[in-house]
Amino acid sequence: MFISKINIRIRDTILDPQGKAVEHSLQSIGFNSVKDTRIGKYIELKIDASTEKEAGKITEEACRKLLANPVMEDYEFEIFPFGEKNK
Amino acid sequence: MFISKINIRIRDTILDPQGKAVEHSLQSIGFNSVKDTRIGKYIELKIDASTEKEAGKITEEACRKLLANPVMEDYEFEIFPFGEKNK
Repeated sequence: MFISKINIRIRDTILDPQGKAVEHSLQSIGFNSVKDTRIGKYIELKIDASTEKEAGKITEEACRKLLANPVMEDYEFEIFPFGEKNK
Repeated sequence: MFISKINIRIRDTILDPQGKAVEHSLQSIGFNSVKDTRIGKYIELKIDASTEKEAGKITEEACRKLLANPVMEDYEFEIFPFGEKNK
């Protein structure tokens, strides 16, 4: 059993109004050193696979087919054995 | 300049209907090995700080004060120098 932790972010060339809104909120409560904010999705999948490589292949395919929008978004993920490094 | 990459996730004890919906979608298109799915937020902040420690402190404070809901959510983050490991 493996856990894959996936970060999906909007590409830099595409406007991120949610990120801009959070950036303004942060600056309005005094975080003046925050210069740029981008918001994306964080997805955790628990995958029943026998090897880390297999879990990676399933994650990659799930991102391509369903989780990420390949036109507007980039994704990256890491695989961890279940039980280790997981809350 | 540093980039902090923040993952915010709903605590395990709290129901995640969005995650369940994605889990069912994945299973319906043939990903039967995906057993559990949780969805959270991924936030990237560009921080104008002189040290990694200072950037970490600002990120921690921003999570506590604005970005995460301390009752329902957990967060974790990593800090990277800007220019390295960033798209």
